[in-house]
Amino acid sequence: MELLKQRILTDGRCLGGGILKVDSFLNHQIDPKLMESIGREFVCRFGDVRVDKVLTVEASGIAPALMVASLLGVDLLFAKKKQPSTIEAPLSARITSFTKGCECDMCVSGNFLKQGERVLFIDDFLANGSVALGILDIVSQAGAEVVGMGFVVEKSFQSGAALLAERGVRVESLARIASLDNCQILFAE
Amino acid sequence: MELLKQRILTDGRCLGGGILKVDSFLNHQIDPKLMESIGREFVCRFGDVRVDKVLTVEASGIAPALMVASLLGVDLLFAKKKQPSTIEAPLSARITSFTKGCECDMCVSGNFLKQGERVLFIDDFLANGSVALGILDIVSQAGAEVVGMGFVVEKSFQSGAALLAERGVRVESLARIASLDNCQILFAE
Repeated sequence: MELLKQRILTDGRCLGGGILKVDSFLNHQIDPKLMESIGREFVCRFGDVRVDKVLTVEASGIAPALMVASLLGVDLLFAKKKQPSTIEAPLSARITSFTKGCECDMCVSGNFLKQGERVLFIDDFLANGSVALGILDIVSQAGAEVVGMGFVVEKSFQSGAALLAERGVRVESLARIASLDNCQILFAE
Repeated sequence: MELLKQRILTDGRCLGGGILKVDSFLNHQIDPKLMESIGREFVCRFGDVRVDKVLTVEASGIAPALMVASLLGVDLLFAKKKQPSTIEAPLSARITSFTKGCECDMCVSGNFLKQGERVLFIDDFLANGSVALGILDIVSQAGAEVVGMGFVVEKSFQSGAALLAERGVRVESLARIASLDNCQILFAE
């Protein structure tokens, strides 16, 4: 997605240690116009897939996932990274959060994920794949099916993309980053 | 907002202890069509106010705030409830999170909140006002101005609305709940 790649080159910053900072337009401050374009691009790429529900994880996944759900006319469900005391029929998976610097139990209420539902997962980043694998686990616990996973930014030099390919998951990433070595942003294609 | 009140009566559930569960359409699973209507209603109610930026707090505030920011054509900034290690020029306030059951430091990067900016704060719930008061604190630290606060649901029987009125903050709440006594949902108007 050219518009996104240009924006990453213009406003993204590489901090070293494989960290790409896009908090001026994607995951802290959000540009709604860009987010609408991101939503349309995902809907286009998954145009041949029947989707019953969009799933994401708090907090940075909510904006792009809401745009997709809105365009598809289906409900959005977001997984929580800390289990609220009032959640019912919780389904959970242990994940390692890179940004939060902790292990935590990501969870959704089983009330909102039904057997046989066709689920499209949308998130801002694919890096080591910990969250994505946790989502596969949770959706499987519900007897539902992940029909695809869409990421705004994929760090192709980390292991997540390969792990999802091994599981046969269809992945669409709007910007694939091959390397952040020497604080240079190099796209995969 | 009649559509919202009807939805709360149909799909909301009162759990006792002043807890209103709206997780089937508002703050866990999200109905994008309802969220679009909520966005339009806020834009209508704050139609006479010039807004430079929409501000919210993760995670449940992001969906309604994104709809508002998208309609107004301004950026959205969401405060984080846990300070990421990579945040720059952090501005923070201590809040008590009812749902998370903890005290935490809510923060935003001062890079994205500028002196003189006119900020509209949008959130899903107004209850005891802890988050809203923290937002006033943070925006004040930046030398910016809160021009209004919009809440999807206000629990009018808790102290938040009165605390904001004392500060002279303009508040618009789309559904005001007068009481949840005996697990009956009673609206204020």
